[in-house]
Amino acid sequence: MTPAPADQPILSGLRIVELSAFIAAPLGGATLAALGADVIRVDPPGGGIDIDRWPLHGGRSLYWAGLNQGKRSVVIDTRSEAGRRQVAGLIAAPGEGGGIVLTNLPVKQWSSYEELSKLRRDLIMVVITGDRDGATAVDYTVNAALGFPWLTGSEGHDGPVNHVLPAWDGMTGYLAAVAILAAERHRRLHGEGQLVELSLSDVGLAMAGHLGLIGEAILEAEPRGRFGNDVYGTFGRDFGTRDGRRVMVLALTARQWASLGEATGLVREFAGVESRAGADFRNESDRWIHRKPLFELLETWFARHDLAGIRKAFDAHGVLWSPYQTVKQLVADDPRASTANPMFAQIEHAAARVRPLAVKKNPPGRSPRGS
Amino acid sequence: MTPAPADQPILSGLRIVELSAFIAAPLGGATLAALGADVIRVDPPGGGIDIDRWPLHGGRSLYWAGLNQGKRSVVIDTRSEAGRRQVAGLIAAPGEGGGIVLTNLPVKQWSSYEELSKLRRDLIMVVITGDRDGATAVDYTVNAALGFPWLTGSEGHDGPVNHVLPAWDGMTGYLAAVAILAAERHRRLHGEGQLVELSLSDVGLAMAGHLGLIGEAILEAEPRGRFGNDVYGTFGRDFGTRDGRRVMVLALTARQWASLGEATGLVREFAGVESRAGADFRNESDRWIHRKPLFELLETWFARHDLAGIRKAFDAHGVLWSPYQTVKQLVADDPRASTANPMFAQIEHAAARVRPLAVKKNPPGRSPRGS
Repeated sequence: MTPAPADQPILSGLRIVELSAFIAAPLGGATLAALGADVIRVDPPGGGIDIDRWPLHGGRSLYWAGLNQGKRSVVIDTRSEAGRRQVAGLIAAPGEGGGIVLTNLPVKQWSSYEELSKLRRDLIMVVITGDRDGATAVDYTVNAALGFPWLTGSEGHDGPVNHVLPAWDGMTGYLAAVAILAAERHRRLHGEGQLVELSLSDVGLAMAGHLGLIGEAILEAEPRGRFGNDVYGTFGRDFGTRDGRRVMVLALTARQWASLGEATGLVREFAGVESRAGADFRNESDRWIHRKPLFELLETWFARHDLAGIRKAFDAHGVLWSPYQTVKQLVADDPRASTANPMFAQIEHAAARVRPLAVKKNPPGRSPRGS
Repeated sequence: MTPAPADQPILSGLRIVELSAFIAAPLGGATLAALGADVIRVDPPGGGIDIDRWPLHGGRSLYWAGLNQGKRSVVIDTRSEAGRRQVAGLIAAPGEGGGIVLTNLPVKQWSSYEELSKLRRDLIMVVITGDRDGATAVDYTVNAALGFPWLTGSEGHDGPVNHVLPAWDGMTGYLAAVAILAAERHRRLHGEGQLVELSLSDVGLAMAGHLGLIGEAILEAEPRGRFGNDVYGTFGRDFGTRDGRRVMVLALTARQWASLGEATGLVREFAGVESRAGADFRNESDRWIHRKPLFELLETWFARHDLAGIRKAFDAHGVLWSPYQTVKQLVADDPRASTANPMFAQIEHAAARVRPLAVKKNPPGRSPRGS
């Protein structure tokens, strides 16, 4: 054990080779890179399949740039035998924190765990697929199969509503980072490598399970309804203000419920609904079941107040709420999305280090290494 | 370095104490528990604030059960000094893989990093908050501020559309697991503990940055539009079939685009649109820009075909697609959501190990331990 050198990021010493496209695998790599790992993308000449994805600015992909921050990149043409040998050598190069590859590209014979682990017996390989059986699936097909689009959007809406945020890609990318760190811990303790396969579809199913949706669908006769912006099982919805803004308001706890009554001056009206319904609004279930008359009282209240006054009252009372913002409003008005937030200062710094497609003179390192 | 015992899960030896409620922190703990870490929840008598959250079955929370699979639990009342000492002792108990605490509850003086690290100098503590500044925020308020609800739902829809999936909670939970493993690696190498603070709001902002949305909003004059179920910047949308089902279809790559033409027999019609527009549909951008006439051709095609025939043609040609399913359809019809999927066999097994609120006789272990 050696003392940590000053200014050394937490994952320094870890080296990951990334063969990837789109979101999940690049996000996993970017996450490890942001923590100080040396992440080296292998890109084909001219860039990978996602090099030009929208949104663009000045002909450059903001999407690609955002997902590949803080990484190094080496251009190698794996259509040639020499290129494939070079990539395999880079993956298997010696070094305690090396010998780790993250990919969501189709695994070929040369890039299989079997072949690569001949070059380095303690290889760690994390392979992201669509379905567990290897079938192609992406965030939007996985989401369609899981049922969320039938639960999203207005109660009366006809048809599914897709999410815009590729949430399954995001979760899968972070789980890939978990997998790499778990496998590297195991290797450090026991010298063993690891092949980890992780599918978007299983990530989605696991999350639906964690949230109780799968158990509910198996055990309950009635399917879950579609509730618009009402947050299922608790008290929360959006409202329109007098000056034409929208706000999201929740009361997940008894304290938040009390705060909302005090901030709006509706304590007595809420108590009237409570006693007529024979309910106890300190309980989350009762607030959900009897939400409609409560929402009506709040609709009237919000329609009479401007955002500025609402902000003052709600922040003073500790109400759980947020104005809705467009992305433009977020970057223009919200200090959290500015360099006042140290994370953005960091990200700017990291972005400055992005050197897309710059060739890195990494020695191919062909010597096999045992555990 | 010692050889790994057979049947030992990858994170065995790691012990995490969890003080938590709702989704992100419990999910982080459940993720580490599923990989073999010993995760011990500390719960107040009668259960925490989320013990009765919907969905329920037979009066029991499927939500709570789903988020706390595979953990152990100890009931301790931290309102008493003795209880607080007991929890602090459990957190700081000796052992190489111990001394790790994950929480999203308000940090009190006794549960602060400063106090706990007096008992164990190499303590690792991961604290999940709403906002970076400690202000309360939850998935639905963070999402309102980020702009996604204005991008979700039909083009003509008036007002924001919330997501139903608490995506920011999910990502934050997985990132908390990343943080714990990264900090434990650092401690193993250098003997140092770590306090990691992670906010839902920063996770959301980082993801909006990774996807290029923040850069786009800063750099582009025009705000991004709302495109219903059309997937931004590529070719993808939902369609209705003759037998009343909906399907999601995408073509992210030139190969997938060719497959879609072949499977539907619309190659010539697509080429006609391409030449009239002066476009090259091998490019993702061109498929996005000229999607409307292509969608019209496909609408007509889908309206003439049943799901069974579509499945046959699409799977034969390797089209990237999925039928939409309700959660009920998912559990009834999709083998991926059954025990045919080894993950669900595993989860069933883990669920059998859930012992909510069972008292664990862990020695309080008060002896301070240096690094």
